[in-house]
Amino acid sequence: MHAASPNGHLKPQSDVAIIGSGIAGTVLAAILARAGVDVLLLDAGTHPRFAVGESTIPHTSMLMHMVAKRYDVPEIEELASFEGVQGRVSPASGIKRNFGFLYHREGARQEPEQCNELPLPGIINTENHFFRQDIDAWMLAVAVRYGTTVRQRVNVTDVDIDDHGVTLKSADGETWRTRFVVDASGYRSPLADKMDLRENPSRLRHHARTLFTHMVGVKPYEELVPHGTHANIMPWSQGTLHHLFEGGWIWVIPFNNHARARNPLVSVGLSLDPRIHPKPDIPAEEEFRQFIQRFPSIAPQFAEARSVREWVSTGRFQYSSKRTLGYRWCLTAHASGFIDALFSRGLANTFEIINALGWRLIEAVREDDFAVERFKLVEELEQGLLDFNDDLVANAYTSFQHYDLWDAWFRVWSVNQRLSNFEINRAFGRYLETNDRRILEDYERHAVRGTLAEYEPARQLFASASGRLRQVQEGTLPAESAARSIMQDLRTADFLPPALGAGDPGNRCVHVTPPKVVSMLRWAKSDAPPEVGRLVHEGLTYFLRRRFAFGEFNPVSEVVKARRRVKAK
Amino acid sequence: MHAASPNGHLKPQSDVAIIGSGIAGTVLAAILARAGVDVLLLDAGTHPRFAVGESTIPHTSMLMHMVAKRYDVPEIEELASFEGVQGRVSPASGIKRNFGFLYHREGARQEPEQCNELPLPGIINTENHFFRQDIDAWMLAVAVRYGTTVRQRVNVTDVDIDDHGVTLKSADGETWRTRFVVDASGYRSPLADKMDLRENPSRLRHHARTLFTHMVGVKPYEELVPHGTHANIMPWSQGTLHHLFEGGWIWVIPFNNHARARNPLVSVGLSLDPRIHPKPDIPAEEEFRQFIQRFPSIAPQFAEARSVREWVSTGRFQYSSKRTLGYRWCLTAHASGFIDALFSRGLANTFEIINALGWRLIEAVREDDFAVERFKLVEELEQGLLDFNDDLVANAYTSFQHYDLWDAWFRVWSVNQRLSNFEINRAFGRYLETNDRRILEDYERHAVRGTLAEYEPARQLFASASGRLRQVQEGTLPAESAARSIMQDLRTADFLPPALGAGDPGNRCVHVTPPKVVSMLRWAKSDAPPEVGRLVHEGLTYFLRRRFAFGEFNPVSEVVKARRRVKAK
Repeated sequence: MHAASPNGHLKPQSDVAIIGSGIAGTVLAAILARAGVDVLLLDAGTHPRFAVGESTIPHTSMLMHMVAKRYDVPEIEELASFEGVQGRVSPASGIKRNFGFLYHREGARQEPEQCNELPLPGIINTENHFFRQDIDAWMLAVAVRYGTTVRQRVNVTDVDIDDHGVTLKSADGETWRTRFVVDASGYRSPLADKMDLRENPSRLRHHARTLFTHMVGVKPYEELVPHGTHANIMPWSQGTLHHLFEGGWIWVIPFNNHARARNPLVSVGLSLDPRIHPKPDIPAEEEFRQFIQRFPSIAPQFAEARSVREWVSTGRFQYSSKRTLGYRWCLTAHASGFIDALFSRGLANTFEIINALGWRLIEAVREDDFAVERFKLVEELEQGLLDFNDDLVANAYTSFQHYDLWDAWFRVWSVNQRLSNFEINRAFGRYLETNDRRILEDYERHAVRGTLAEYEPARQLFASASGRLRQVQEGTLPAESAARSIMQDLRTADFLPPALGAGDPGNRCVHVTPPKVVSMLRWAKSDAPPEVGRLVHEGLTYFLRRRFAFGEFNPVSEVVKARRRVKAK
Repeated sequence: MHAASPNGHLKPQSDVAIIGSGIAGTVLAAILARAGVDVLLLDAGTHPRFAVGESTIPHTSMLMHMVAKRYDVPEIEELASFEGVQGRVSPASGIKRNFGFLYHREGARQEPEQCNELPLPGIINTENHFFRQDIDAWMLAVAVRYGTTVRQRVNVTDVDIDDHGVTLKSADGETWRTRFVVDASGYRSPLADKMDLRENPSRLRHHARTLFTHMVGVKPYEELVPHGTHANIMPWSQGTLHHLFEGGWIWVIPFNNHARARNPLVSVGLSLDPRIHPKPDIPAEEEFRQFIQRFPSIAPQFAEARSVREWVSTGRFQYSSKRTLGYRWCLTAHASGFIDALFSRGLANTFEIINALGWRLIEAVREDDFAVERFKLVEELEQGLLDFNDDLVANAYTSFQHYDLWDAWFRVWSVNQRLSNFEINRAFGRYLETNDRRILEDYERHAVRGTLAEYEPARQLFASASGRLRQVQEGTLPAESAARSIMQDLRTADFLPPALGAGDPGNRCVHVTPPKVVSMLRWAKSDAPPEVGRLVHEGLTYFLRRRFAFGEFNPVSEVVKARRRVKAK
């Protein structure tokens, strides 16, 4: 499996060395150090620093709650709500109260009915636009407080694994001896490089390049098109806004969208399928400027916008690995693969991996047994999440060719997201009640299949819709037919709460109001297939109970606050 | 004066190019852009980033008020008070309510009576411990909002000045043509390099090297030695704490010292005269750890402290320049020279230069006349401030050999600081009333002489004390005798408000309470030399009037808040 090495006799100076002090590295370091593991955290750069991966989703936040409680690192929970981040970390982050989608066609004004919104009801959770430079630096300090040793500006260039440990070498010739190494870096992973782990060509379907920066002077979209023009319930600027068009999309992630905002910045990015939009030989900013001029309802939002940092323009952004772990080593989510910022799943996948890796690694260190078998599920999880995300995003890009098809795929994504939120929340709720770790271990095993609920008809609906989108991509099925079939499936699925209106073509923005929650609970009890009924009932009530129990949520003040927010706009 | 160049025919693409997007570069860029000047801001690195220069003094804040009003960039004023920074910029900064000094001898416990405190009364202003990574990134966004064009990761390697403009070249071969270049970088100034501006050897007396980092787990000093042990009025952790000892000092600048603090970090640095403490061949962190072990009342403060970033260890930190400006070019404060973090004068000098340079440059651009004569005073100011600061710090290091001598020099520094604060505040107050720019131009001319009030006997007192410290340094005067003579001068000086007790040996912490303010005003009117009386009276009343007029200050709520703060500790 691995050869004896000239370093085999050296005594490890740490239990675990983590390469990369991004959010994955620091959260994992905090968890391990909290459990008494001796952690060395190495990073090629320094903090503070710019990072993308700004938008959280309920699934991310719920994982953060879970990880915080499971590993007894309460600081992680501060990141799980807007209130926590504002109150304990940094008010430079923005609020995310919805996913907003506006569909555009080149040269034409945006048709107001071609929009979708997934509001994130404050009754469930409040999501964030993480200002990563603050979040990451804060989390590094947390890791240090729990005892992690940090070394910055250390460029790990060699990793040598033997029967007794791991030897890391830096470009400067410094060496460290450790018992296990986690590569939590990213695309330029030293371990992937050393072990030739990257798939080349990648197995991934999705194909995109991206351009991004932070800007001042980005207009809230409702200043251009008054709130009320579209069917969205929450103003677009209150969440992550997606401008969609054939072959790509633009993200608009404001940090300046709440009453206490002191940060004038907005994160802006443009992702494009290079097979449709080849990379021109001009500077990135110029490409962005020229590109948005093609869309009369996008360009005005950026008319007065100026970037506060250089635009970054990437080549193909997708990568994957043949393996993600082995004897005494492991890659975390972004060191092993990446898909796209669409649907904001990056942070969620990171926390899914940390959740499953943490206790395995703590036990391995305690028992001094790093057999690969102990970690096997972590690899399944990484590869499974990557493939799921690949399908989700590749299909979305396919759907961008026709609004109806996007609208149908949006619904498939959003109902699945809701069901899987019930799933994780039910698991977490049961765990809090029983303190039985097997519940969380069960949850991990299910998480492998992405955001799909553990209910076969739901998985079938997703698979069937995904199959139709592949046919569209291959040119064997017209977009309109695929859209119609998917909508038909959504209408007839008996396991989707009618209150969500997933199959109702006129219903493009589903706000889960308190009456709808009540109606869902009633449906779950009487009309739903029993398995789904239990899932929805348990998931929902755990949601609510947690919010009440943790004192995060007060339904009356929530309504008052929501009204104030709208007035303040 | 300068040769014709092959680039002479090129048309400038900007009016002013600024190299370096630290606080000097961004504030100057904002001011110029606000006035319609076309500004290009180039930086070798990116934001966010770590920077030192964290502690503000009343003089800095007053300059920020002045610059903000004079150049109509209200954002700069947000940086001028704790409330402004907390409310508008970032709560990651700390509060600075005092300068605290504890004198130590190697191997001995700190003697409680060997301490000094200069409390910064909230009635006058509230100072900050700037968390520079947030402040600087925020200020960059302000500059961009006013129209500055920013380019990051641009390493300017060549500057070529001709009759018609300036050509800048980067390491990547990119070129820019501009009409005037400001080098606002720092020690590694491209202009200083190109024009061989550094004095070698430097004319500076002061000689020190430094080690610094940010840490978690630094104990507030009052946890080790209960508040009340020393004569200080405000707890040590409420301000910038200085541990002094022969040949150097340690700074402790908490960001976590107020009720809304979310930032657990404390800035820690050690400055040493290498002639007394030669640089050992060990890592910086180890040097710090070993060094503090020599001081039984310093080491415990850092017993549980851990750095969140690598320690930086410098060689000699002082540098100076033969010239600081010429035809179509200028260096700002830290590109032209630097002394020491002691007395926190770095930011103040930066704003002094920006204040004087801004309008000259705006007019030069408007009139297309960059004659060196227009800028002459800026050079006098830079060189004067550097020399003044050099005296101040070199003498302080000399005084560290004996507590009484330090105590005497502390008093000379603090009374001069107070008088010069009256000076700047009087000028600013008069300007606000009359809008007469000549008042500010007069102020600039006086500022050349550092923090000394425009009153000859005050300058003489400083010069005489400084002379005595030079004699001590040269070994021609015993420390005790020098200390006695300086104290004698302070006691007999009729121009020092008796309420400050500058010559009273028992009075080591002067809190300017409201009754003392009243007594100072009475003294100014009746007993003071008329010139000083007017200065103190006008300076004080403008202070108070400004605080009231701007709605920053409410004396009742201030008292309530102060009590709460004390209770909260």
